[in-house]
Formats: sequence, structure tokens, C-alpha cells
Amino acid sequence: MDLHTYLEQTADQVDALFNRYFGSACDELGRASAHLLLAGGKRLRPALLLLAADAVKKGSSADVMPAALALELTHSFTLIHDDIMDGDQVRRGVPTVHTRWDEPTAILAGDVLFATAFEFLCLADAPDNAKVRATSLLARTCVEICEGQHLDMSFEKEEDVSEGDYFKMVEKKTGALYAAAAGIGSILAGGNPNYTDALYHFGQGIGMAFQIQDDLIDLLAPSEVSGKDQASDIREGKKTLIYIKAREKGFDLSQFRGEIPGENVEKIISRLEDLGVIAEVQGIAEDLVRTGIRRISILPDSEEKDLLKELGSYFVRRRY
Amino acid sequence: MDLHTYLEQTADQVDALFNRYFGSACDELGRASAHLLLAGGKRLRPALLLLAADAVKKGSSADVMPAALALELTHSFTLIHDDIMDGDQVRRGVPTVHTRWDEPTAILAGDVLFATAFEFLCLADAPDNAKVRATSLLARTCVEICEGQHLDMSFEKEEDVSEGDYFKMVEKKTGALYAAAAGIGSILAGGNPNYTDALYHFGQGIGMAFQIQDDLIDLLAPSEVSGKDQASDIREGKKTLIYIKAREKGFDLSQFRGEIPGENVEKIISRLEDLGVIAEVQGIAEDLVRTGIRRISILPDSEEKDLLKELGSYFVRRRY
Repeated sequence: MDLHTYLEQTADQVDALFNRYFGSACDELGRASAHLLLAGGKRLRPALLLLAADAVKKGSSADVMPAALALELTHSFTLIHDDIMDGDQVRRGVPTVHTRWDEPTAILAGDVLFATAFEFLCLADAPDNAKVRATSLLARTCVEICEGQHLDMSFEKEEDVSEGDYFKMVEKKTGALYAAAAGIGSILAGGNPNYTDALYHFGQGIGMAFQIQDDLIDLLAPSEVSGKDQASDIREGKKTLIYIKAREKGFDLSQFRGEIPGENVEKIISRLEDLGVIAEVQGIAEDLVRTGIRRISILPDSEEKDLLKELGSYFVRRRY
Repeated sequence: MDLHTYLEQTADQVDALFNRYFGSACDELGRASAHLLLAGGKRLRPALLLLAADAVKKGSSADVMPAALALELTHSFTLIHDDIMDGDQVRRGVPTVHTRWDEPTAILAGDVLFATAFEFLCLADAPDNAKVRATSLLARTCVEICEGQHLDMSFEKEEDVSEGDYFKMVEKKTGALYAAAAGIGSILAGGNPNYTDALYHFGQGIGMAFQIQDDLIDLLAPSEVSGKDQASDIREGKKTLIYIKAREKGFDLSQFRGEIPGENVEKIISRLEDLGVIAEVQGIAEDLVRTGIRRISILPDSEEKDLLKELGSYFVRRRY
């Protein structure tokens, strides 16, 4: 099966299960909690968890499906709370929870999904000791995600964010949950500690690359393609790797904070290309994926191992 | 040992452990997360969990201490998020997290404690199958707490809240976490399903009674004694059991919403006493405790069983 088909089938499965479990909420908080879950999404974290489980033990993905849903629940919880903090109005083509309802309801809706993630994790068909380890890992991961989001927000007030600061932030904010997805898939499928460790670091690396690619897409993709405002990171003064690398080369993107007219974006992109910033940032993302793929070379060969490698490559190849 | 001494010793133990684990945070989010934890508190949920564990299996409380901390972490998480939603400025004599820091940091600090609760739960010295069941129960409980808080907020917009609505709200908002404390203590100590069920319902009953007593204290205790504004519930139009029972008897407390001058409070209390509202509400709380105590009669006799009964009686006897 090719990766595209695999991802589509997994997303359909996840969508169907979320519809079954959350599609008929009979109170406002239930509807607010389900709102973002039912709005679709690529379901990449569930796919990673399922592939990791099958790569470790063929045929185990059906047993660990509740854990795959737990990862997506966790992701949705962080999105709902992040949207409040960032004041974002739209997500996945629908109004954010705090916009459609109100802030207290959005805080609670996030908390409900957070709790439900742990409930689902415990429903996986796996040995109890594996479930306890998976629970600990997911809990630790959630702490890291919060730390990452806090770092990201604190960067807004700082001009001088180093590459090291950035990597620390992105490792926690985005890398940690992809790491947990792959690691938990392995733990629940009975993967030995070496496999689990390899998959954890694979997930972490491709997760970080995913975020860097996201930053490139924000800059390079026209709004018609990405469905988002082009170059919003620059307007908002976000300290992305592009910002940091440009600054190292004497080009300070903070001068464009606030509104930049559309035609200016093309000029900024040209300048960044001339300085080699785009290529360098893209190269860093690709390195992370290559390193991640090397980590999982210890896994026995299988169709799922190949799909994992393709998933990593896709993370830095995608254009939206 | 008498209950007072037991509660003091437990609170000291919990304080010392929180100081050890959270007392030297080196970043702002860590400090914000620790802020309320380190501000003291009665630590009643940890005490209930430890007593339940020892009542089921003498000497097991040391093994389950991390779970006792998990319950207090969960409680603190709900307080931090509730304070944002309710716009409260002071808690336990210190500024609330969103007041001392800001709202995004308070949302994240709550999320960190929530995640840390599950981490601590997994650190209990207990069989893995018990830890999985305890994790599921804590997760389900957190969903209920959110539902309870959402109901409580929705009552503010309604005049006609029935006794049934109130009990549903208070069962979720306050009863559920006390129920989980006692139930998890039993599960982790290896209590049989009958013991766990009895302790769960005991916790639920005395937890609901605790909240009703809290509402009575809000009305009856002078600010010097309670450390809170007297009759704040009436001013804020809260739909307490006092409000509902008074309304049944034709005395509508919503007329006093907004500011009530100090001398009016005494008149309102007299009127409520004459109508028999205070005695009726107090009686309902006492019934809940008596019923709860009857549930745990199936436990073998022990010092801890006696302390559990005393704890229940204390919940409706306390004056602040």
C-alpha cells in the first residue's frame, strides 16, 4: 500500500470512530468538546502510532486503536487551549471553540478531551504493565507540550532567540507528541526497549521536521494553497528557524512585524532565497528526518517500516 | 489517633512532598504550576485516599502516597482553571495564578498539574492492573468535574434550577473527586470490588455533603472566621441548595443579587431560619454523610474505618 492510501484509510477510520463516540453529544460541553474532533484533520499522530505498533508486531494495530485515538484527543486538547492563548478565530475551516462558544467552555472542552485521552489509552488491548508505561509517557509528554507552548509564547517578547532555544521549544511543543505516538505504539505492541527508544526518537525527529516544514509553508505557500494567511509568522513576529537564520545573516525580519503588503512577501522570499536561508532551513528539516530514519533501521524489515520512512520524507516534502 | 491529629500529620506530609517535588522550579511555568500547591490547604482528598487504603489493607498508605498526591494535583488543576472562569482574584490567601501571572500561563499551569497527576498515579507501589483501573477512574472523574463546573456556570443564567439539577451538579463537581479518592485508595490497596464500591459511594456522599456545608458556611460564617466574603453566593446569584429550598418556600434570594449591605445578611439569615431552610439544608448534608457511613459498614473494623466515619461527620460539623 502506498503512504497516501494508508493515511487516507487511517483518517477515515479515525473519523468514523470519533463520529461514533462523540457525534451525538446531548449537552453543550459535549458538543464543544467534539467540535474540533469532528472537523477532520490529517490524523498523522494516530497513523504514526498504528504504523509503529505494526512495525514492531505485525497485526497489532487493531488492538492499539484506542491509543491512536488518545493521541489525537491529546492533540485536539492542545489546539483548543492554544487557540485561546493565541486568540485564533478559525481552525480546520471552522470557528475555534472559544469563538463558537466562550472561553470558559473552551477551557473545559480542552480539559474534557485531555481526560478522555487517558481513558482511551487504558482501553487499548495490551498488557497492563505496557498501559502503565504508556500512561506515564503520555502524561510526561503533556507536561513537555505545555512547556513548549510556554517557551513559544515567551519568545514573542524576545528578539534574541538562539537556534538552541528554538530546538528546545520545537522538541517539546511538536516533537514530543510525535515521539510519544511512535513510542506508545511500540510499548503497547510489546516492542523491546531498543525498538521503543528508536521509534521514540524517530517520532521526535520527524515531528520537529514537521514543525519546521510548517514554518516554511507559512512563508512560501500562497493562501489559496494553504488555506491560511501567507507569512503570518512574520507579521506576528514569531521566532521561527527562518527568523533566526535570517537574523544570523543580518536580515532582521522583525522590521516587518505588523502588516506587510502582499507584494512585499515575494520580495522577502527572494531576499531569503538569495541569502540561502530557505535552503538551509529546508536542509535542517531534511537532516532531522534522515537521522530519524537511521534510528529505525534496527527494526525488522516490513511494509510498515517502509511506510514509516515514507511518512518521515512526506513530512518535509508536503507543500500544505 | 484523633482525626484532627491525623489530618494535621497528613497535611504536613503532603506539604513536605510538594515542597520537595515542586519547591525549586527554575522557570516561570514551573513556578506558576507550583504556586497554589505550595500555598497549603487541608489536603482532605489525600487524607481520604490514604485512610481508604489503610482501611482496606493495613499499612498500605505509604505505598499509595503518590496517588494521594495525584488527587491533590487534580484538585489544584481544577481550582486554577475554575479561578480563570470565575474571575477570582485570591485563593488560599495568595493571588490566583492568572492574577499573579496571566491567563495563558494559568491555563498551561493547570494543564501541567493535570498531566502530573497521571504521572504520580503511575508511581504508586501497586499492581499494574490496579494502576490501570485507577487511571481510568481518575480520567472519568476529571470529565465529570468538567461537566459539573459547566453545569454550575450554566445555572447562573437560569432562575429555575431544581433540587435534582443541583444534586447532579454537586455530585459531579465535588462528589466525584472525593469518590475517586476513596475508590482509588481501595483499588490500589487491593480492596475487593465490594469494598471499592462502598468506599467510592462513601466518598461521593461525604463530598457532596462537604459542598453543601461549604454553601452554609458562605452564608453563616462572618468574614473574620471564614476568610471569605460573607454571603458571596447570594450576591453572585449562585444556585445553591439554600437558594433552591428558599425559593420553594416563596423566598426568592435572587432579589439580593448584586450588592447586599452587611446588616441585610443577618435579616436574610433570620428569615431563612424562620422558614426552616437552614435546618433542612443542614439535614440533607447530614443524611448524605449518614448514608455514606452506612455504606462502609461492610469494611472490617479498624482505627482507619473509625477515622473515615469521623471524617464524614467532620465534613458537616466544620464551621470554616
